Amino acid sequence: MKITIVGVGLIGGSIALTLKEKKFADKVIGVDKDQNNLKKALQIGFIDEIKSLEEAVKETDVIILSIPVNAIIQTLPHLLDIIHDQQVVMDMGSTKEQLLASVDHHQRRGRLVACHPMAGTEYSGPEAALSNLFTGKTMIYCDATNSDEDAFDIAESIVDQLAMNTVFMNAKEHDIHTAYVSHISHITSFALALTVLEKEKSQGRIFELASSGFESTVRLAKSSPDMWIPIFKQNRKNVLDVLEEHIYQLQQMQQLLKEEDFDTFYKLIKKANKIKRILK
Amino acid sequence: MKITIVGVGLIGGSIALTLKEKKFADKVIGVDKDQNNLKKALQIGFIDEIKSLEEAVKETDVIILSIPVNAIIQTLPHLLDIIHDQQVVMDMGSTKEQLLASVDHHQRRGRLVACHPMAGTEYSGPEAALSNLFTGKTMIYCDATNSDEDAFDIAESIVDQLAMNTVFMNAKEHDIHTAYVSHISHITSFALALTVLEKEKSQGRIFELASSGFESTVRLAKSSPDMWIPIFKQNRKNVLDVLEEHIYQLQQMQQLLKEEDFDTFYKLIKKANKIKRILK
Repeated sequence: MKITIVGVGLIGGSIALTLKEKKFADKVIGVDKDQNNLKKALQIGFIDEIKSLEEAVKETDVIILSIPVNAIIQTLPHLLDIIHDQQVVMDMGSTKEQLLASVDHHQRRGRLVACHPMAGTEYSGPEAALSNLFTGKTMIYCDATNSDEDAFDIAESIVDQLAMNTVFMNAKEHDIHTAYVSHISHITSFALALTVLEKEKSQGRIFELASSGFESTVRLAKSSPDMWIPIFKQNRKNVLDVLEEHIYQLQQMQQLLKEEDFDTFYKLIKKANKIKRILK
Repeated sequence: MKITIVGVGLIGGSIALTLKEKKFADKVIGVDKDQNNLKKALQIGFIDEIKSLEEAVKETDVIILSIPVNAIIQTLPHLLDIIHDQQVVMDMGSTKEQLLASVDHHQRRGRLVACHPMAGTEYSGPEAALSNLFTGKTMIYCDATNSDEDAFDIAESIVDQLAMNTVFMNAKEHDIHTAYVSHISHITSFALALTVLEKEKSQGRIFELASSGFESTVRLAKSSPDMWIPIFKQNRKNVLDVLEEHIYQLQQMQQLLKEEDFDTFYKLIKKANKIKRILK
């Protein structure tokens, strides 16, 4: 199968690495606005050729969009215009409602399979790509009933290669759930980094004191704004909704600390501990 | 060397495991109010005997206190009363100011070496003990000039066995810094868990959607209130100070989202990204 990867970064690169390793892809074409990233991807070897999107489309079976969500919205209608009816487009965007609304009435909407892999690291770019990034993680299919059956089958065969579990959701539901479990984690991590940077002027101290607990909580604060601002933009309402709840929870703890009501605080932590049985 | 571990959980157990593995300790005596934990520690093999504190003190060179900080404050004055002048006490408490103030005028204050290992996991109990928990992590010595030189040398020989880097701080400075980089991470993680539990009633969805990002941010929310409430109690003022800043940072992001001022939000994330060069 011939695959085009639009966006040769962490996600696109990791897909390409896996599909080449498993010999599922005969050829991978790389498309990216960043020439340096394309060169690196060629060097690493997870793409075989560099082409423009228009040239790539002429000789490919599947086009995978692994670019920031604002770029997906810009690219998707044009891409559906220029593909033919046997080709398949998969997008890997972290938000779905606006994105899918933008092609809702497109005559080739059925060729699109909307996907969101719940996997990633705080690093970006081709060098961040990992062949086992997706193993055992969850792939969300959004509004799958709007995809043509044969297009979905092809997408599924790719997700099988990535060894992922799958979940089906509609776009609205997807954006609400991801605000809860992914987008808010990033907001809180960015805020925590800013808090510590603000409070702790002696940088040497932060380095020395960074225990594994702090590192894991603040890890996501290394994430790129080029990826995350478009996500917050497109999922603004849901993120605001969860952020309000999160600030409320912190204010509740602040109040309990002020009042020295440690019995209630104890119960609150016990309740938070319930995340144990839900996570693993 | 004969060592007594008071509190045979994650920290005490990990110390004992390492000291036995490296044959630094000839005998390790376990003291704990929880008989089950003592039995488990014997089974795992990181203690050789179970004794009361009073009995253990009679035949030991070093007594290590790895119990919650409220229990350390309760135990420490009595312990300094009953030891003799060649014995050494090390405490592993996560807060120091109140704790050290409580024995400031004790005639055997010099036998105490106040330590805080910046290492841990979200798990507790003897089964959580790991022999490499401390490798390459940082040990903070607090108010080390108040320890007798020979007592400090013995403590240092133990920390050497744990393969830790060391930092010196006074108790006040310690409590401020740990509020920034450790205690606030736990508060925010507890609050995040409560937020998600509150917002996301369908538990199956949380499990399916939990990406590694969410898991690492919320990991600390599994931590025990028995350990953390005493820490928040003793470091209340510093934790409140940092929490106020953290809530302010989140409110700032909330405001930017409400106003759709994504340019400023972008700059804020760029600033948060600076945590990269500080952490690693």
